[in-house]
Amino acid sequence: MTTIGLIGLGLIGGSLGLDLKAMQHHVIGVSRKPKTCDRALERGAVDRASTDLTQVAQADVIFVCTPIGLIQPTMEQLVPRLASHSIVTDVGSVKAPVVQAAEALWPNFVGGHPMAGTSESGIDAALTHLFVDRPYVITPTEKTPQAATRAVADLARSLQSRVYECSPEEHDQAVAWISHLPVMVSASLLAACDREDNLQVHELAKTLASSGFRDTSRVGGGNPELGRMMAQYNQAALLRSLQGYQDQLDQVRSLVQHSQWDELENLLRKNQGDRPGYL
Amino acid sequence: MTTIGLIGLGLIGGSLGLDLKAMQHHVIGVSRKPKTCDRALERGAVDRASTDLTQVAQADVIFVCTPIGLIQPTMEQLVPRLASHSIVTDVGSVKAPVVQAAEALWPNFVGGHPMAGTSESGIDAALTHLFVDRPYVITPTEKTPQAATRAVADLARSLQSRVYECSPEEHDQAVAWISHLPVMVSASLLAACDREDNLQVHELAKTLASSGFRDTSRVGGGNPELGRMMAQYNQAALLRSLQGYQDQLDQVRSLVQHSQWDELENLLRKNQGDRPGYL
Repeated sequence: MTTIGLIGLGLIGGSLGLDLKAMQHHVIGVSRKPKTCDRALERGAVDRASTDLTQVAQADVIFVCTPIGLIQPTMEQLVPRLASHSIVTDVGSVKAPVVQAAEALWPNFVGGHPMAGTSESGIDAALTHLFVDRPYVITPTEKTPQAATRAVADLARSLQSRVYECSPEEHDQAVAWISHLPVMVSASLLAACDREDNLQVHELAKTLASSGFRDTSRVGGGNPELGRMMAQYNQAALLRSLQGYQDQLDQVRSLVQHSQWDELENLLRKNQGDRPGYL
Repeated sequence: MTTIGLIGLGLIGGSLGLDLKAMQHHVIGVSRKPKTCDRALERGAVDRASTDLTQVAQADVIFVCTPIGLIQPTMEQLVPRLASHSIVTDVGSVKAPVVQAAEALWPNFVGGHPMAGTSESGIDAALTHLFVDRPYVITPTEKTPQAATRAVADLARSLQSRVYECSPEEHDQAVAWISHLPVMVSASLLAACDREDNLQVHELAKTLASSGFRDTSRVGGGNPELGRMMAQYNQAALLRSLQGYQDQLDQVRSLVQHSQWDELENLLRKNQGDRPGYL
């Protein structure tokens, strides 16, 4: 049995609590809102809950499950109270800036990103088995103690996640390609259609749009705060992906402009073959 | 009762036949393949079927349901045999080049685009009620006789389609925005990801891709011949949409580059509000 600390009892923190408590770990939760503490206790996501951050400071492994912008300030408050053996990890969707700041504050820190979620948020959205068969990326650096990496990886595997290890920078570039770039590509599609200045064409486009447009525009019409955060915290990797995308779009546009239909069909055929590799 | 001619007995031609015959119209079908004629008869999609194009030349309304590249050659063969009262329409997904060529050959021509389909093709994929609640765009020009437009619109309404009328050029620009541009945007996303030269990042991206990437890349990984045809026949409107998209993407990239997070969030918030208008 391990004592687990959870800071932040939303969808991810609450779901971690439900599974880890069911595995007989001793789970202590912290939330800024007393009401969230009560709900976490009622739902069986924690053994104890408190609004006082110091309550988790002696835990063996502490998961920081706050929004990404609060990870560093939370660590700053927490570090002076931590037991020397405590391992701290986080669940943020961008790793390089988080890990860099956190490991400077606490050597026993391991970055993590459980890639699970639903469109809901908050303790009432927490689910058991949320992480089963989902990727859980762990991003140790050269400075990370191996025992800390192993402890977090073992917990992630106990959740039945598929565990991957890579550097924070590799993680950030990979999620830029498959998560953050698609948001910007999709958002630009919606915004471009909406700038059509022929009103009749604009109305007709809205009327005729069907499944192809619906799918391609979905992530670009999603949560604006989340889209902003992705770009803000993963700026460098996103800009690199945007540059690669831009180059590729220029090539496609040039094929259309110069009526190079065979070349366009070849590119689309290669895509058709490559896409299953991402699914 | 009207005599209906169907040239091409695939998914669209066959589905038109099933519904129009059920409404007691006399339906004559033409296919280049005797086997397709047999299947159309067996399935009850036609009253008579033949490989001889002249068999439909006396019909009241003739639907040309061939692939888009065969509409003009088919019309050229058909026109010398047509009865003077015959109305000809087509079902192609691009209208301006088709209508321009067809109305020069036959004054009683009305362009049409029933926007229904499945991922299957051929007479065996034909379905009853395929057009119910789907858009059916009719694209008369200044030269089109009003009676011809009315006759095709009445038939489309009898299929329970939602009938829209606009110019061929307006149709083509609208479908460029909501159908053809998304294919190019989505194809460029897949192709760009696949050009990542850091092999570990590339492999990780493929492993971590989930629903967001799946949806945004779907139409870009679809039928390559269809994607080529869209671009080839709707080149001018697609290039205009690609230019608008390019401008919009430049703006998004500039916001990310210059850390204009509030402006980026505002753009995403506007998208979130606008998207339901397309669904």
